[in-house]
Formats: sequence, structure tokens, C-alpha cells
Amino acid sequence: MTDSLSTASGKTGLAPGSLIHVGEILQPVTRVTLIDYTKDAMDELEVQSIEEIRKYKDTDTVTWVIIEGLTDVSIVERIGSLFGIHHLVLEDILNTHQRAKFEEYEDHLFIVLKGLLSEQHRFRVAYEQISLLVLKNFVFVFKEKKDELFAPLIQRLRTSKGRFRSKGSDYLAYSILDSIVDQNFVLLDRLDDEITSLEEDLLVSEPTKITLNRIQKLRREIISIRRHVAPVRELMAEMLRCESGLIHENTFIYLRDVFDHAIRVIESIELYRDILTGLLDIYVSSVSNKMNQVMKVLTVFASIFIPLTFLTGIYGMNFEFMPELKWKWAYPLLWGLFITIPLVLLVYFRRKKWL
Amino acid sequence: MTDSLSTASGKTGLAPGSLIHVGEILQPVTRVTLIDYTKDAMDELEVQSIEEIRKYKDTDTVTWVIIEGLTDVSIVERIGSLFGIHHLVLEDILNTHQRAKFEEYEDHLFIVLKGLLSEQHRFRVAYEQISLLVLKNFVFVFKEKKDELFAPLIQRLRTSKGRFRSKGSDYLAYSILDSIVDQNFVLLDRLDDEITSLEEDLLVSEPTKITLNRIQKLRREIISIRRHVAPVRELMAEMLRCESGLIHENTFIYLRDVFDHAIRVIESIELYRDILTGLLDIYVSSVSNKMNQVMKVLTVFASIFIPLTFLTGIYGMNFEFMPELKWKWAYPLLWGLFITIPLVLLVYFRRKKWL
Amino acid sequence: MTDSLSTASGKTGLAPGSLIHVGEILQPVTRVTLIDYTKDAMDELEVQSIEEIRKYKDTDTVTWVIIEGLTDVSIVERIGSLFGIHHLVLEDILNTHQRAKFEEYEDHLFIVLKGLLSEQHRFRVAYEQISLLVLKNFVFVFKEKKDELFAPLIQRLRTSKGRFRSKGSDYLAYSILDSIVDQNFVLLDRLDDEITSLEEDLLVSEPTKITLNRIQKLRREIISIRRHVAPVRELMAEMLRCESGLIHENTFIYLRDVFDHAIRVIESIELYRDILTGLLDIYVSSVSNKMNQVMKVLTVFASIFIPLTFLTGIYGMNFEFMPELKWKWAYPLLWGLFITIPLVLLVYFRRKKWL
Amino acid sequence: MTDSLSTASGKTGLAPGSLIHVGEILQPVTRVTLIDYTKDAMDELEVQSIEEIRKYKDTDTVTWVIIEGLTDVSIVERIGSLFGIHHLVLEDILNTHQRAKFEEYEDHLFIVLKGLLSEQHRFRVAYEQISLLVLKNFVFVFKEKKDELFAPLIQRLRTSKGRFRSKGSDYLAYSILDSIVDQNFVLLDRLDDEITSLEEDLLVSEPTKITLNRIQKLRREIISIRRHVAPVRELMAEMLRCESGLIHENTFIYLRDVFDHAIRVIESIELYRDILTGLLDIYVSSVSNKMNQVMKVLTVFASIFIPLTFLTGIYGMNFEFMPELKWKWAYPLLWGLFITIPLVLLVYFRRKKWL
Amino acid sequence: MTDSLSTASGKTGLAPGSLIHVGEILQPVTRVTLIDYTKDAMDELEVQSIEEIRKYKDTDTVTWVIIEGLTDVSIVERIGSLFGIHHLVLEDILNTHQRAKFEEYEDHLFIVLKGLLSEQHRFRVAYEQISLLVLKNFVFVFKEKKDELFAPLIQRLRTSKGRFRSKGSDYLAYSILDSIVDQNFVLLDRLDDEITSLEEDLLVSEPTKITLNRIQKLRREIISIRRHVAPVRELMAEMLRCESGLIHENTFIYLRDVFDHAIRVIESIELYRDILTGLLDIYVSSVSNKMNQVMKVLTVFASIFIPLTFLTGIYGMNFEFMPELKWKWAYPLLWGLFITIPLVLLVYFRRKKWL
Repeated sequence: MTDSLSTASGKTGLAPGSLIHVGEILQPVTRVTLIDYTKDAMDELEVQSIEEIRKYKDTDTVTWVIIEGLTDVSIVERIGSLFGIHHLVLEDILNTHQRAKFEEYEDHLFIVLKGLLSEQHRFRVAYEQISLLVLKNFVFVFKEKKDELFAPLIQRLRTSKGRFRSKGSDYLAYSILDSIVDQNFVLLDRLDDEITSLEEDLLVSEPTKITLNRIQKLRREIISIRRHVAPVRELMAEMLRCESGLIHENTFIYLRDVFDHAIRVIESIELYRDILTGLLDIYVSSVSNKMNQVMKVLTVFASIFIPLTFLTGIYGMNFEFMPELKWKWAYPLLWGLFITIPLVLLVYFRRKKWL
Repeated sequence: MTDSLSTASGKTGLAPGSLIHVGEILQPVTRVTLIDYTKDAMDELEVQSIEEIRKYKDTDTVTWVIIEGLTDVSIVERIGSLFGIHHLVLEDILNTHQRAKFEEYEDHLFIVLKGLLSEQHRFRVAYEQISLLVLKNFVFVFKEKKDELFAPLIQRLRTSKGRFRSKGSDYLAYSILDSIVDQNFVLLDRLDDEITSLEEDLLVSEPTKITLNRIQKLRREIISIRRHVAPVRELMAEMLRCESGLIHENTFIYLRDVFDHAIRVIESIELYRDILTGLLDIYVSSVSNKMNQVMKVLTVFASIFIPLTFLTGIYGMNFEFMPELKWKWAYPLLWGLFITIPLVLLVYFRRKKWL
Repeated sequence: MTDSLSTASGKTGLAPGSLIHVGEILQPVTRVTLIDYTKDAMDELEVQSIEEIRKYKDTDTVTWVIIEGLTDVSIVERIGSLFGIHHLVLEDILNTHQRAKFEEYEDHLFIVLKGLLSEQHRFRVAYEQISLLVLKNFVFVFKEKKDELFAPLIQRLRTSKGRFRSKGSDYLAYSILDSIVDQNFVLLDRLDDEITSLEEDLLVSEPTKITLNRIQKLRREIISIRRHVAPVRELMAEMLRCESGLIHENTFIYLRDVFDHAIRVIESIELYRDILTGLLDIYVSSVSNKMNQVMKVLTVFASIFIPLTFLTGIYGMNFEFMPELKWKWAYPLLWGLFITIPLVLLVYFRRKKWL
Repeated sequence: MTDSLSTASGKTGLAPGSLIHVGEILQPVTRVTLIDYTKDAMDELEVQSIEEIRKYKDTDTVTWVIIEGLTDVSIVERIGSLFGIHHLVLEDILNTHQRAKFEEYEDHLFIVLKGLLSEQHRFRVAYEQISLLVLKNFVFVFKEKKDELFAPLIQRLRTSKGRFRSKGSDYLAYSILDSIVDQNFVLLDRLDDEITSLEEDLLVSEPTKITLNRIQKLRREIISIRRHVAPVRELMAEMLRCESGLIHENTFIYLRDVFDHAIRVIESIELYRDILTGLLDIYVSSVSNKMNQVMKVLTVFASIFIPLTFLTGIYGMNFEFMPELKWKWAYPLLWGLFITIPLVLLVYFRRKKWL
Repeated sequence: MTDSLSTASGKTGLAPGSLIHVGEILQPVTRVTLIDYTKDAMDELEVQSIEEIRKYKDTDTVTWVIIEGLTDVSIVERIGSLFGIHHLVLEDILNTHQRAKFEEYEDHLFIVLKGLLSEQHRFRVAYEQISLLVLKNFVFVFKEKKDELFAPLIQRLRTSKGRFRSKGSDYLAYSILDSIVDQNFVLLDRLDDEITSLEEDLLVSEPTKITLNRIQKLRREIISIRRHVAPVRELMAEMLRCESGLIHENTFIYLRDVFDHAIRVIESIELYRDILTGLLDIYVSSVSNKMNQVMKVLTVFASIFIPLTFLTGIYGMNFEFMPELKWKWAYPLLWGLFITIPLVLLVYFRRKKWL
């Protein structure tokens, strides 16, 4: 199974409230990057100690902290205590079996959703959990893996010359969500290619067990993608209803755009699911069709030659009193039958459209 | 695949907010037509430069601008800055993978939906994205393709003698939406013909792989049409709820009419989907039925002649001590069996209703 | 196709707002009947000219005008202008592809729904569109066909001796709707008979292509009935929410009764649909079952006689050195095998429950 | 069909508002029982004339009138006029094709639902319509059949010694509804037994046409039960929302209990429906599986013996120049082939897992 | 059937309001444990008599009473009268066929849901009903079985050193619910293993009846789990809406966490259901595929050898006048045919992709 559904059972029985990392370890070492910007300046540094973050706490600049890798629980814990994050939020960040959701707290917003780790060389989907903590002047992003997902965004920050950098942490959060949701479109394109190739295969060539396995594999992928992507719609809807002062009025129009994209992604996935279900029907029908043809060939062969063989059987008998055996024209006459019977049957089968 | 589902992945990673045309290019050259009318007069001109539009901006006349072809991004950009359109709206106009939607802004309404490009000679559906910007005295229509979709509407404007021309931009927007939605009925008629012919085929003649491919092709078309048409219902519902002063109270009754048409279109499509699913069931049943018949023919032939052949086999053996071989009546008696056994079996099969 | 789904495409491109009759012509000549009543008196007359209606306009009596046949557009037009009916309503009356709906205007209510034209001698459903205009003291009914649908209602008016006749136009409208909705029950009874006979057929006798065609025909009928009847529920629900003064408070309880009947009709249709889907499953299973039996017969025959024929083949060979051919008991011994082998196989097949 | 869906078509065309009994006659004679109680006393009598009921009308005691059998329309009519019941309610009581519903009138509540007439000796469900009229101090129950449904309830009244008897007509109505809804559980138990036995049958023994008919019969029963039971949920929900003074605040908690039971019944029925659909899938798969086995046996037999028979055919030919016929070791060598070929094929088939 | 759906029919006809235990007896002896704690101290004792509980009634400490085993009705009855619990609540506690629900009373909350009794050695699910009564300083838990479900929780209480113990009865109730819901994840893990193993089986090896039975067994388990788990979502949603003072504002965030877990469980179950339905489709397709292969082998063998056998039959006939029999090259020529015909057919079948 490409996407194990195994859940947080490892933690069952544990005291709720204890901070441990639950889930597969995708990244053994944790990297913390800090980007601090105002309209005029921008700082980028790799953070070695949480203390370095503390000094940005009381400035007016927007600070973006990216934590890649969740194994070092103490980092999460210290950020939590430094910024007064609720204990349950910290638990959710560390438990990578979360359903996408949006939660509003007094002085921060918590967003958790799945990002896609699409692989280069083949169609397979993996997921990482991405959590966002949006504070007044801070955005924390917790990712399971080190990758280049936010590289274009950082590039835009660098080159923005004021426009982007003059906006607040809510706009930064929007940009991050936009990056994550739009990544799905790459996946949808690949899915489209896969399904188109499968469909062409099915309508042209013979149905085989391999086709069946491909259909099943794709179906599982789609079920799994839908499972991770569907709650994003709800997340965005709740975010749009959010009345916290942390999101500026002007940002809502951007969030609505992300919402539209999320709906588009979900509708496309539903569509692919419908098409795939249709393909399985086509597959089953093709197999039946095929069998029908095989049966016709068998029936035509058997129905023609079995009666003839019976005829030869008759005159292969060794009775002493078989007058026909001595008739001169018996043999040629029989050849007449050997030719006539198949012809009659062939005409009959042709009329039945079997040939 | 007739309708590629490929999505806006080309733009992934790009800064949100940058204006580029996303989608297939259906029209390389952009044509801009301007129609300006009051109760008493009407102007029609092909616009060469956006400056020509500017001079209509502060008049009281209703001005309708039709932009056909989206490749020239600068036109959209300049209209946007001239009329103060939100940047995200401009992006949506240029990205032809939009889901139909209605958005209300302070001083303009934005409507985007899919128009149908039905082809003359065969059943195939293509789509173009049509965006409407409704301002106080202005309606902008952005289309992907140059065609005659609005010709009857323009003709009505010319001949209206006041009635149509005395109404505002909201009534013009209604008339445009009405044209676009009613175009679907032509498509539904063709779909009806296709399905009826398919159904007659299925109930009369033999099931073949070609029928299967036709069913699958139609199913995909219907899925694709539904995908583009279904959100129009929502769009119209939201438009009816709109409390912007841009839509006059008297216009709502007309919009409700378009809403009814949209529902009718969607219900018909759902209906065709149901019928098509039914046809696939019929197809599968027909194939089974067919196979059943083939098997019966085989079984009847084989069951009659195999035992007889066995009998001839017995008396074809060369044992020295086979008393029957010398009996005078053995051969005629055997012929009796050759006739009796098939008769008995035929009666048996007839009783079983196999013949 | 019994119920063509062809839609109003004939009107596409036409100016919205032009009055023409859209739809099949079911009745070439238009008949207009007028019934005027008060508690004490009742007038019935066939109207030749719209002018005759005008004189009832300002009386306090309830006037019921039945227009049968929609080809004479001018009648509808003149009634419209005489009573101040909105142009879109007149269009809807003349376009017989309407979805059932209820619309509330300032001084009139508009109701449009489908009546059933059940045929006497066979199970086939046809539809006619019936539109109601309910004014203060007037009810207009527009029908596509001349028939006796309202005969019992008129009879009741004649004999009512005050009770019915003392109520207003809203009660008359209720009575008309009640007649139309209750007509569906006749249809449901016939549908029930059809399905029961089909089911008995299926469970008792062999599955044939004819059964399949009957199932498909019924399914299409049900889809088509549902399409026309389902929106009546919504229509009635909206009518119950209507706050126009045109419906008297005491009449709502009667409308609720019609609403209940409409729900009952729709639920029954859903039920028949479920049952029919079930019957198709049964059909498919029966075909498989049947094929299974055919295969068993073939397999039993072939498995018994093919080995025996092989045995006879051996001793039909002409080798010079075949010692068995000279043995005296070889032939009787072989007969032993000819009897034993089938017995063994028969026991084996019986154990497998194939016989 | 066990549960005819025939509807009230017998009444179509009749004036709405005329009182006649519509439905099958389950009980030719009508029995009227009256139970009157206060905390301290309890009267039970069989009522011969409606006049006997009148005298309880103005007392403070709770009076329960059970009318069993609906053929005597005059009883319903007189109760109606005596207690001021709306004419439509009386019609609904007499028309036994009602959908379960709750209606609130100014001084009475009207409840109609289906009771189950489960038969003793076999699994078959019949229904009777039960109507309740709840007034200030009166409860009328109209049943189609004379039976012992309320015997335990009456017994409790007799022995209650104040607790039950000190409560009002609303508590009595609750107790009646509770009896009717809880009766469904008996039915569910039998349904459970039936389905379990069917399932065991299916997983263990061969699929036959009888199994198929059992599945279909059960499915129809479940569809029919669901149709009658599902609206009870809605009925109870509406009753819980009822703000009429006729239901005491303390009684709502009891009604909520009935509501919970109704939901439980409906969920169980849905569950059985799912399981039954699953069983049909299993049935179809079993038939396919079975056919597969039959085909394998046929193929193994035919594939082994047909080539061998061909070999014997060769040396049964009568050509003069067939050198092998004179070789001494030809016959034993051929026997070698007769043994080797089947062995090779058997190994091949075993490898393919056909044996 | 692993999970009998038999319902509370044993109680039908009984007076509502009588306390008896309805359901299977899972635990013959009842054990009552009492845990009483404050921030500083903690008492644990096994209660022999209800009187021991009474003395904790008026203290400020939080008291948790666990009743394991429901056969001793008197315990429930006495607790009910001691703490003023509504009679219907006591009935619900004793009737183990409850649907999960939340009910709010004036001075207590009532929660009932199903706990899972997962067995150690094989995949089988059993259920026990767990009821919670939450009072100001008391939590009662009624379980059907004695087990170690709450052991980790009690351990946490012992070691909590104030943090847990300083919170009220609402936090205790949350912790209990959390334990029960999180237990489902263990089950989901096992379900995942089962389905994965089934899927691998299906895609790799031959489809057998055993696979079918496994699918059916899993499907029933999933239906049954869903039935018990689905209402927990509703329960938690109602609890979150609860405005009773019994739940402290700070506790809602914890309850929301349980709510999220419940949704996650339900979504996973739906997912498994989808996957399982897909597996059945795959199974059916595999069987068809398999049959197709079998048929091809049969057809190839039969089509090749039946014509050849006919040829040998011809020259096995005993006519006197068969000139070919005397030709010297007849026999070798025939061998030519014996080799050519199969080769031609093999090429033909290969072209058809049957080999």
C-alpha cells in the first residue's frame, strides 16, 4: 500500500497532553530557518538556538520561521512556551496524522494541512503534514521534510521591493497556503496523463490483469488524495468566516481565491473518480466481450466438425452388412456432405452475426 | 480525451498576482468591439486602442465592450487600471481554468462561466471561458474566441427602438447570460439525438465493442458538460441574492428566468447521465444474453453428436471377437439409435427452452 | 423514445421577450371556456372573443377561464395585457418545456406544472403543461389539450349548493391542483401492475431479451415521470410559504394536503425505481445462473463421452501387433469400462451438485 | 407482491372533502372501546353509540377511545363533529394510504403512522394504519384491525395505582406511540434471523435460483418496511418541536426517547439493506466462481482426451502405405504417449492452479 | 454473525419505565470502584455497599465511580435515587442497545457510547456499552465488562501531582471519552493490516471462494463498526454545543480535540469501506479474467484437434472405393496437413493475442 492509513494508535493509552512525535520520521535532522522583513529590509538566517528567535519577538517586523523536521520535540516545546501556544496545538503539530483544520485562538491562528511530495520519476504520491501558526507579527511553519517548496516564495520576498513586504503576517500566511494548494495542480496534471493513457489502452487493446491492477492502483491513489485534500475546503471556509483581528479585511479576497482553487482541486478529483469508475465498467464489459468472441470461435469450430466426425465414424465401423460401403458413389457423395454441412452452418452463423 | 482536464499547473510556483494568460490559446489575435447606446442612439465601433474606451467612461450611456481573444494581456491590464478592477479579477479573466462564479465588488460585479463551442458536423463539445464585468454604465465581456454568439443580441439592440436600449447595464448583463445559458439547449438536443440513436442500436442489434466505445465517449462528454454547467446554478443563485445597487430591482425577475433555465439544463444532464448508466447495464446484460445463446448452440451440438460418435467408435474397433459385427440387423438397429438419441435430446432441450 | 427530451432550443438566439409558442402542437384549435359563480348562481359559457371576459373583470364573482390549446398566441397576449400579467409569465405559459414552479407577483400567482395524459389501452405516459394564473377573483388555466380532466370539478361546482361556491379563487386553485396531482395515482396503479407482472415473469420463467427491453422501457418511463413530478413538491412547498394575500389562511390546510399527496407520489416513484434496479440485478443473476446450467450439461456430456471415445479410438487402430485385439474377453471387458467410467463420473458430478 | 403499493387512485376525481373509506378492508365490523381514568378510578366499556362518549366530554378525567375497524364511516363523522375535528383530518383517518405525519391544530394534535401486523408462522409483514387524535383530556385511536396491540398498555393502566393514571392525555399518547414503535423491534429480530440464515446459506452451499428469490423477497420487504417506518422519524422530530400547550413540558423527555427508538429502527433497516446488497454481490460472485470451476473441469477433460483421440484416429486410417502399422514397437510406444501427454498436461494445469 | 443486531425486542410490551437489564450478559458479577481525589490527595477503594458512596456526596472532591457489570440492577437503581437521576436515564444505562447519544439534564449530563473489546489473537470486534453520568463533583461510569481500559488513566491520576487532579469532573469526563475514542485507532490499525493483506492476495494470487468470504466478513465488520462509531460524532458535536454550567469553558478545547479524533475515525472507516467495495469489483473482474483464460485454452485445444480428428476419421472409413487409400504419398501428405493446420491456427490465435 502506497499510503499506509496507520493511525495514531502508538499513542493510545498515553496521557493526553504529553508531547511526543507521532508518525513516520521523514527527516532525521531538524532545520530551522528564520526570515525577517519589513518594507525596506530583509534578514535570512539559519537558526541554531531558539534564543535567536526570541529577540524578534517584540519588534514590528514580520518574522517567518520555517521548522523542517519534527523529531526534535524540544524545539516545538520551547517555541510553544515562548509564544504561549496551547498545549493541544503543540501536540497536533507533532502528531502527523492530523486532518486538515483551522483553529482560532485568542492571539494566534492554527492551520494544519497536507502538502504533497510528488516524486520525480513515477506516479506516486506521498504526503507531509504542514502546520502554520499565525501570530501578530510571526508565522511559524512546521514541515516534516526539508525541501524547496517555499523557494519561489522566498525569492518573491527578496525581490518584492516593498509590495509584498509591506503587508502583514496574514498576507504571508495566505501566500504560504496558496503555494501548498497550487502544488496540487501539478499532481492533477499527472493524474490526468495517467488516466488518459489508461483509457486509450482500454479502448484499443485487450483487457489484461495488468490493466486491472493499474485501475486499482489509481483508484487507491485517488481515494487517498481525496482524503487529504477534501478537508482543505472546509478549512478555507472556516478561515473565511474567521473574525479574529489577525486577518486583515483586505486579505479575505485573497483567501477566497485560495478557497476557489481548493474547490477546483476537489471537483477535479471527484471527476477523476467518476471517470475511473467508468473505466472499470468498461474493463468488465471488455472482458465479457472478449469471452463472447472466444466462445463463438469454439462454437463455430466444434459445431462444424463434430457432426462431420460422426459421419466418418459411421463408415469407419466394421459391420459385415453395411451396403453403403460397397456403393461406388458413396464416398464422393459423403464428400458432398462434408462440403455442404459446413457451408450451411457457416451461412447460419453468419446470419447470427457470429462471424 | 476530448476535454483535457489539465489545469493551471503551468502557473504553480509563480507569484500570485502576476498577470499572464493561462490556458490553451484559442484565438491568436484580440478583437475589441465597443457598442454604446442610449434610448435614442447607438454606436458600434471596432476599438484599436484602449484610449477610445476611456472617453465613454464618464457618459451616461450604456457601453458594452467585447474583448475576443485573451492573448494580449496588456488590454486586460489597461482596462483593469482604467476602471479600478481588483488584480485578482484580472488574473481570473486571463486564467481560463476558472470554475463558474459570481463575485461582488464595491463598484463592479464579476461573472465568469463557460460558453459552449458546439461544432457543426459531429457531436463534440468544446468550451470557451466568458467573463463579464458589470459596472454602473459599462459591461465588459472577455471571450476566448471570435464568433457570432452575440450577433442576435446586437441585432436586437439595433432594432429595439427604445425598449431594450432604455434599460441599464444590468439588463444587458442579463441578456448576455441568457444567450450563453440558452445555447446549452442546442447541445442538449444533439445529446438527445445521440442517446436515442445509441439506445435504438442497443435494443435492436448485437452488442459490439463499438457500442461500448460510444457509450464511454458520451459518458465522458456528459461528465465534462456537467462539470462546466453545474456551477452556473450556484452562480445564478448568488447573483439573485446580490444586494449591490448595480442590479435594478426589476431585473431580478429576468435573472430568475435565467436561473430556471440553468436548473433545467442541469436536470436534463443528470437525466442523460442516468439514462446512459442504464444503457451500460443493458449493454452488459446483452453481452451475457448473447453468450448464453452461443453456449446453448455449442452445448446442443456437442451433446447430440459426442455420444453418437462414441457409438460409431465402438463398432470401429478391430477386436476379433465382436459378435455384433456379424449380426445382420446390427447396422440398421444402430441407425435407429442414431435417430432416436438426437430426438430424445432435442425434446429434452426444447423442454428446457434452449431451442 | 417515448418522451422526447428535446428542449426549447428552437427559441435559442431569439430575443427574450418575444411571445411564440414553443413545443409540440397537441391541439390545433383553441377552446376557451368561462365559468363564473357566486354562492347563489353559476354561469358557464364558451368564449368566442376575449372581450367577453373583460366584463367579468370588475365583478365580485369568482371567474374561472379554461384555455385549451396554446397555438393561438394572441389569446394569451390579450389576456396578459388585460390583466397586467408580466411578459415573462406569458412566455412561460407558451413555452411548454417549463419545469414545475410557483411564482408570486404583486397581484397574481403563477403556477405551472405537468398534467398526465394517460392512454387507455397501453402503458405509456404523455404529458401536457398546465399553467394557472390566480388573481383576486379570477383563475386562468392554460392547457395544451382539450380533455375531460376538470369535468368532475365542474360537476361539483354545479351541485355544490354554496359550500364550494362560497369560497374564493384560492380554493378553486387548490381544487384544480388537487385534481392534477391526484391523477398521478391512476398512473402509479398501472405502474404497479406493470412492475408486478414483470417481477413474476422474472422469478418464474427464463430471462430473455424481451424482459430486458421491458425493464429498460419501464426505467425510462419512471425517469421521465420523476422528472416531471419531482419539482411539484418544491412548487407546493413554496406555495405554502407564500405570504401573498391572495391565498386565504384557511386554504393553507388544503394546500398542505396536496403537498402530502405530492410527496406520496414522489416517494412511490422512488420506490418503483429502487424495485426496478433490483429487478435488473435479478435479471443479470438469472442469466448467469442459466449459463451455469448450460455449461454443466455440456461439461457432463463432454467429460463422460470424450474419454470413452478415446478408448474406442485405441482399438480402432490398425497396428499389426496389438495383442488385445485377439483376446477373447477384451471386448466384454471394454464394455465393463464403458459402463464403469460414466458411473464413476456421474457419482463425482452428483457429489459436486452438478446434477 | 406481498405489499401492494396500490394507492388512493380509487378516489381520484372525487370531490376533495367527501368522507369515504379508502383502502383494503381489514376488519368488517367496527369495535369501539372506551377507557376513562383518573388517579383513583378507571372505567372500561365497549361503546355501542357515540352518545356514550359525549358524556365524558366535559369531565376532567382522561378518556381513551379505541376505534378498531374503519368501515363504519359514520362513527368517524360523528366523533369529528362532536369534537370539532377538521374535515381533512377525518378524511386522512379514513384513507389508509397516508404517509406518517404529525399535524398540530388549535385544540388537537393529529398523528398518523403505520403499525405492523407481524404474522406468527412465517416472515411476512403487513401493515395497518393507526391514527391518534390527542385532545385536552381525550385520546382517540383509530385502527384498521382488532388485535391485542394495546393489551399490555391497558394492563399497566389497570395496575398503575396512580403513577401512570395521574398523568395527562399527552403521556397516554406517548405510551401509545411507544408501543407502536417498539413493536418494530420484534420485526427487526426476525429480519436479522432471516438474513443471517440467508448469509450462512450463501457462504456455505451452492448458489441456486431459490437463494436469489429469497434475496429479492427480503429486499422488497425491507424497501416496504423502510417506506412505512422512515417518516416516523420526521413525525417525532416535528412533535418534539411542537409548541402546543397540549404536550406538557415533562412529556418531551419521553417523546425524545421514542424519537431515539425510531432512529434506531431506521438505522437498523438501512443496515440490513446494505448487508442484503452485499449478499447479492456475493451471490453473483459465487455464480461466477462456480462457472469457473465447471469450465475448468470441462477444459481439463477436453484438453487431455481430444489430442489423444486424434492420435488414435491417425492409426485407425486405412492407407495401404503406413509403415508404422507394421512396426512391432509402434503400439507400445503409442501407449507411452497416451500416458505421457496427460501427465504433462496435468502438471501444466496444476501449475496454473486449475486442479 | 459476529455482531448480532438483535435489538431490545425482549422488552417490547413491557411498561416503559420498569428497570431491567436488556442485552447479553457479559459480566455476571458487578464490581464497583471508587476513586476520590483533590489536588493533594487521592483515595481508591472497592465499594461493597452504595452507602459508602453517599458520604462523598457533599464533599468538594472529585469522585469517580466505575461500575463494571450491569446485572445487579439494584445498584443502578440506588445510585439513581441517591443522585436524583431521571428514570429514563437509568433505563438507558441498563439497556445495552443504545445508540451513542448525549443528553443534558438540569444537574447532570448523560453520555452513552460503545467501547471496543478488541480481542488479542484474531481480527474480531466486540462491543460494550459505556455510560457516563457527569455531575458537579461526580462522574459515574457504567461498563458491561471488567477490564483494564481505564488503567492508564488511573495511573495518570496517581502520578499527576496536581495538574490533572486540580481539574474538575468535566476534565475527568473528557479524559474518559478520550480513552474510549482513541481505543478505536488500535482497531483501525488492525483493519488496515487485514485489508492490505487481502489486497495483496487479490492482486497476486488466484481468486477463490475463501477470498470472497474474507471480503464479506470484513465488510460486515466495517458496517458494524460504522454503526457503533458514527453517532459518536453527533454526540461530541452536541456536547460542544452544550451550555450547561457543568462543563468549564477551558474544557471545550479538549472536547474539540476528541471531536476531531472521532471525525478522523469515521472518515477512516468510510475510506476502508470504499476500498473494500473496490476490492470486490477487482475480485469479480479477476474471476472473469480467469474464466477468459480457461476458455482460451479450451478453445485453442479444441479448435486445433477437432478438425484433425475429422481428417483421420475420413481415412478410417471402410469404403471399397476410396482411391486415396492406395496412393503412396497420401499418408505423408496428410501428415503435412496435420502439421500445417495447427501452425496456421496457432498463428491466427497468436494474432488474436490468445496465446
